Amino acid sequence: MAVPMQFLSDNAAPVHPAVWEALRAADEADAPYDNDFLSRRLDEAFGGLFGCEVAALWVATGTAANCLALAPMVPPHGGVVCHREAHIEVDEAGAPGFYLHGAKLILAEGEGARLTPGDIEAAIDPIRDDVHQVQPHALSVTQTSEYGRAYSPGDMSALARFARERGLGFHVDGARFANAVAHLDCLPREACAGSDVLSFGFVKNGGMGAEAIVFFDPALADVVRYRRKRAGHLQSKGRFLAAQILAMLDDDLWLRNARAANAAAAEIAGACGSRLMHPVEANELFVRLSSSEREWLRASGFSFYDWGEDAARFVTAWNTRAEDAAALAKAIAEL
Amino acid sequence: MAVPMQFLSDNAAPVHPAVWEALRAADEADAPYDNDFLSRRLDEAFGGLFGCEVAALWVATGTAANCLALAPMVPPHGGVVCHREAHIEVDEAGAPGFYLHGAKLILAEGEGARLTPGDIEAAIDPIRDDVHQVQPHALSVTQTSEYGRAYSPGDMSALARFARERGLGFHVDGARFANAVAHLDCLPREACAGSDVLSFGFVKNGGMGAEAIVFFDPALADVVRYRRKRAGHLQSKGRFLAAQILAMLDDDLWLRNARAANAAAAEIAGACGSRLMHPVEANELFVRLSSSEREWLRASGFSFYDWGEDAARFVTAWNTRAEDAAALAKAIAEL
Amino acid sequence: MAVPMQFLSDNAAPVHPAVWEALRAADEADAPYDNDFLSRRLDEAFGGLFGCEVAALWVATGTAANCLALAPMVPPHGGVVCHREAHIEVDEAGAPGFYLHGAKLILAEGEGARLTPGDIEAAIDPIRDDVHQVQPHALSVTQTSEYGRAYSPGDMSALARFARERGLGFHVDGARFANAVAHLDCLPREACAGSDVLSFGFVKNGGMGAEAIVFFDPALADVVRYRRKRAGHLQSKGRFLAAQILAMLDDDLWLRNARAANAAAAEIAGACGSRLMHPVEANELFVRLSSSEREWLRASGFSFYDWGEDAARFVTAWNTRAEDAAALAKAIAEL
Amino acid sequence: MAVPMQFLSDNAAPVHPAVWEALRAADEADAPYDNDFLSRRLDEAFGGLFGCEVAALWVATGTAANCLALAPMVPPHGGVVCHREAHIEVDEAGAPGFYLHGAKLILAEGEGARLTPGDIEAAIDPIRDDVHQVQPHALSVTQTSEYGRAYSPGDMSALARFARERGLGFHVDGARFANAVAHLDCLPREACAGSDVLSFGFVKNGGMGAEAIVFFDPALADVVRYRRKRAGHLQSKGRFLAAQILAMLDDDLWLRNARAANAAAAEIAGACGSRLMHPVEANELFVRLSSSEREWLRASGFSFYDWGEDAARFVTAWNTRAEDAAALAKAIAEL
Repeated sequence: MAVPMQFLSDNAAPVHPAVWEALRAADEADAPYDNDFLSRRLDEAFGGLFGCEVAALWVATGTAANCLALAPMVPPHGGVVCHREAHIEVDEAGAPGFYLHGAKLILAEGEGARLTPGDIEAAIDPIRDDVHQVQPHALSVTQTSEYGRAYSPGDMSALARFARERGLGFHVDGARFANAVAHLDCLPREACAGSDVLSFGFVKNGGMGAEAIVFFDPALADVVRYRRKRAGHLQSKGRFLAAQILAMLDDDLWLRNARAANAAAAEIAGACGSRLMHPVEANELFVRLSSSEREWLRASGFSFYDWGEDAARFVTAWNTRAEDAAALAKAIAEL
Repeated sequence: MAVPMQFLSDNAAPVHPAVWEALRAADEADAPYDNDFLSRRLDEAFGGLFGCEVAALWVATGTAANCLALAPMVPPHGGVVCHREAHIEVDEAGAPGFYLHGAKLILAEGEGARLTPGDIEAAIDPIRDDVHQVQPHALSVTQTSEYGRAYSPGDMSALARFARERGLGFHVDGARFANAVAHLDCLPREACAGSDVLSFGFVKNGGMGAEAIVFFDPALADVVRYRRKRAGHLQSKGRFLAAQILAMLDDDLWLRNARAANAAAAEIAGACGSRLMHPVEANELFVRLSSSEREWLRASGFSFYDWGEDAARFVTAWNTRAEDAAALAKAIAEL
Repeated sequence: MAVPMQFLSDNAAPVHPAVWEALRAADEADAPYDNDFLSRRLDEAFGGLFGCEVAALWVATGTAANCLALAPMVPPHGGVVCHREAHIEVDEAGAPGFYLHGAKLILAEGEGARLTPGDIEAAIDPIRDDVHQVQPHALSVTQTSEYGRAYSPGDMSALARFARERGLGFHVDGARFANAVAHLDCLPREACAGSDVLSFGFVKNGGMGAEAIVFFDPALADVVRYRRKRAGHLQSKGRFLAAQILAMLDDDLWLRNARAANAAAAEIAGACGSRLMHPVEANELFVRLSSSEREWLRASGFSFYDWGEDAARFVTAWNTRAEDAAALAKAIAEL
Repeated sequence: MAVPMQFLSDNAAPVHPAVWEALRAADEADAPYDNDFLSRRLDEAFGGLFGCEVAALWVATGTAANCLALAPMVPPHGGVVCHREAHIEVDEAGAPGFYLHGAKLILAEGEGARLTPGDIEAAIDPIRDDVHQVQPHALSVTQTSEYGRAYSPGDMSALARFARERGLGFHVDGARFANAVAHLDCLPREACAGSDVLSFGFVKNGGMGAEAIVFFDPALADVVRYRRKRAGHLQSKGRFLAAQILAMLDDDLWLRNARAANAAAAEIAGACGSRLMHPVEANELFVRLSSSEREWLRASGFSFYDWGEDAARFVTAWNTRAEDAAALAKAIAEL
């Protein structure tokens, strides 16, 4: 088989045709940075989507989005509660330490890489309220989580209530926020209910290089405008980032793409049975597979990452072909 | 006149058709981050251009390129000598303070926003060699300078020699490096002779959102790979940045574009006479113009920035139309 | 002459007997850090001195005091306006860059290392109000200045008013604050009128290793308690720092010591005539002296620093002997 | 009983008479900072003690010592392996994040708050060797550990060998290093065998406010001299810190004091039997005691901290009176 059937990463998928079209349409010279007509439409576009006033900024990557989102809520001497397997802890090369100037990630445990108020209490209640220990200033959760699990609107509301009670800012890392909304079949704001700021991912979902930081408290964005420039993330041809995002929002392309990815994952999940390490609620599957089983699948033309010694991770994307998903489901069923 | 004749900023210019083509060609899924086939060609492509072994990394912006280039040469307690009007000092929102963790910019004065070894000595010789004062660890110059002035190969060699004698790393901010090479009509390496690292700009010269950091000491790049990720600048679809850069290098598009921009600037310069505040060696013109003269030019359809009270800045780009340059030259001549 | 007559630095002077006595009295075990009885008296002691509610924290050095004082007023992306020759710019090894996480010192020019509102305007008015440039968030002035010049109560009030109008926090570096009050013969609060926080120095004035950060806005101290610990400046036997400071405040020892130092400086100044580079208002003298004159003075038993090529700096202290001051005055008069 | 029998913290103990004497002897004016005669003797004094060339710097606190010791070995994008209960992780308010500019503490598990090479492997072997994860650059262990456990010379050598193999710098937090040497009855260098740098504590052992950073690789100290000043830890009357340390080294006062504290702890330990949570090898006892037992002990005149719900921590010091130790032993035995 010449080209492998791609389940490696949604990070690697192509750019959606509608995004290409929008990019081309943005080519004409406009004001630099974020003074162009497209960038100036973001607040309104996201405000409409979420049904409330927001301030929205583009950046190129999820790592930058997460760190800039947290920046106005966490002083350098403060801490951010997150899951022990959160992307900001595990896979961002210490970026929060950089952007937050040495602030600390306070790690909590929770099922499926998700956190409940109780999980968070277990992590922060032992912290003595004195100057010798780093105090928590914000909470960050991932929707859907690093294991593809969604927080329901009720889960989110409970977290938001807890955060408010404890005086914590509340950030949602939404690298796969679209997949969560598609799974929950709820309003976008319900999927991040009560949060102060959302990193809304588009790159994994058909974009090229643009994510949005959506501030539900617009005042936070005023600080972040400076921080974004200071981090070298204010692109001079920012209109191309805004164009991608607006194309994704247009006619709910973001949601349609996520539904397609989720559906492909669900089809494969149906064939995995007890091999599944986590319920499949989005576009990621963690599947127990022996080394020889993985070898056989690769020989059969499927491309994916190992997940430890005895498992594999499969990721579908907006462009996963129905026949490829079906082929993978069939191959796993036959193992 | 409906559309203004654009002399505002090369930052705002369109993307070159060859770059568009390369972007489209890169769409097919490939390995994420910089493990794709295109990103892996950069070292060789720049090595060929400069005639020596290099390591080259893409980033989205010049600010990130400059700061990441300096990062492996300057410890947090160190300093970087640069011109008082250098972009890193004036227009990067304190990004060097962020990326270098509080390191200090040591400001020197020099004609045309350029520095000579003597200028640098004047800035650093008064620094006492004790722990109470920040010691210089690197030198950063801009080619072409913030006033559009080029360093000749001899100038660069002299700076490199001086830097080596003083134990300073040597960085060249080449946001408009292409314009310098076009003006100097020299080999690329001659235009940054002896430097340790070059920020090679493409965004102002026909790119969309990709600059290169070219390390002439490849070992420096090993640190910067971590720093780039940590700064949120490792884009997951990095192939699109590599594609832009390779397209610009292909068949010397970068040089042809710069020559076009320089030629347009030269034509306008010819009409400015003693109004010019600086000799025009690249694609920027700083022109003494009264408030009413500027008003008249704007009314005539030209778009540009004021430069203080009594002057204006005009910038040409790869796509400046010959007729627009001619029209501006004529308009200024007639003032 | 066996022992040189010491005019090198008030930094090197002995500890005052009353401070020794207080140190010994503090020896008995007490609660660690700043939970001891002495540390808990600081707020009240300084509140009484300044006639208003304050929060006061001890630290070991003036550099730590200055940087921690500024920390709650200046975000990492912000700037601090100070004089080009301010101690925080020139002689603290980049400590503000460290403590403020890369925030920038915005340098202003002013006579005698002092600043007026006009001087500050000249420095900050050219800063564009956009995200590309670092915006000022605080003002820091030195009382007495690096050239031994005092700000009058009226000067301070004018600066405070200006700072308030411009939304700037206002810090006074009072390494030699005592000398200013002694010179101005005013109330302590008048000598730092309207400021938000004062670094009140004791080490140069008879202490061993304790300075106070006095917050006129006590809320600022709440942040700094964390920052102090995080900087390793919360000493476990903090009672010894509190003891020094309380001894200095007791019966106005700080003021009496400063008066003694100022008087010695005044006597020497009387002999210097036009050799003085700056009026002598505190305990530092900057005196034009040729190389051979300095050589002769050293041969005569006086110890001091050169100040550039053609001058010397003499510093008196709380313990400068009358006969030494008289001898120096005589020696200079005879040159 | 008027004065409680003090087992709260060695941090709160008085200053040893010999240290007082040395402080008084240092009063005479000398060169400021660390240019005085006493500070300049430190390298030789520690060189003699450890039997090798070293560079030694004083600082006021253990937190500063630890962080400055690590600074030259860990880049901002790097990590430090330490125990999950290490002081630098738990009780320094995030100081490593500050001093190391966001570098990460990589937490390992080990018995008695000690680490073995195997413990460290368990923590770092899962770290992927790619730019998305923070790589370990140094190892930090505490001698004696946070639970009062000593590393034998063999333990230390094994850690040093492991660190060297893995390319890790090796730091020993020796806040209670003296107690370890007293327990192990070995040469000082054996108790930190193979390490690159030691934070050698004196404050808990009879000092007032001085610890030493001892660099077995003197080149590391050259960077730290700048970092110390930049952190506001270069005291201008540094001679008083050097005096304390030299007094502690003189005639092995440090060792005699530690032996006294250890002996007092051993006596109490003898009465604790199975109540002990950890073997007692230094001057700290962690003792299982119910709430009512603790209440009774306090009523009997003993001062100490609770350790969680069902235990207490007792700390002896150089000045613990034999009768107090005996009384506590008796009281616990009688429970």
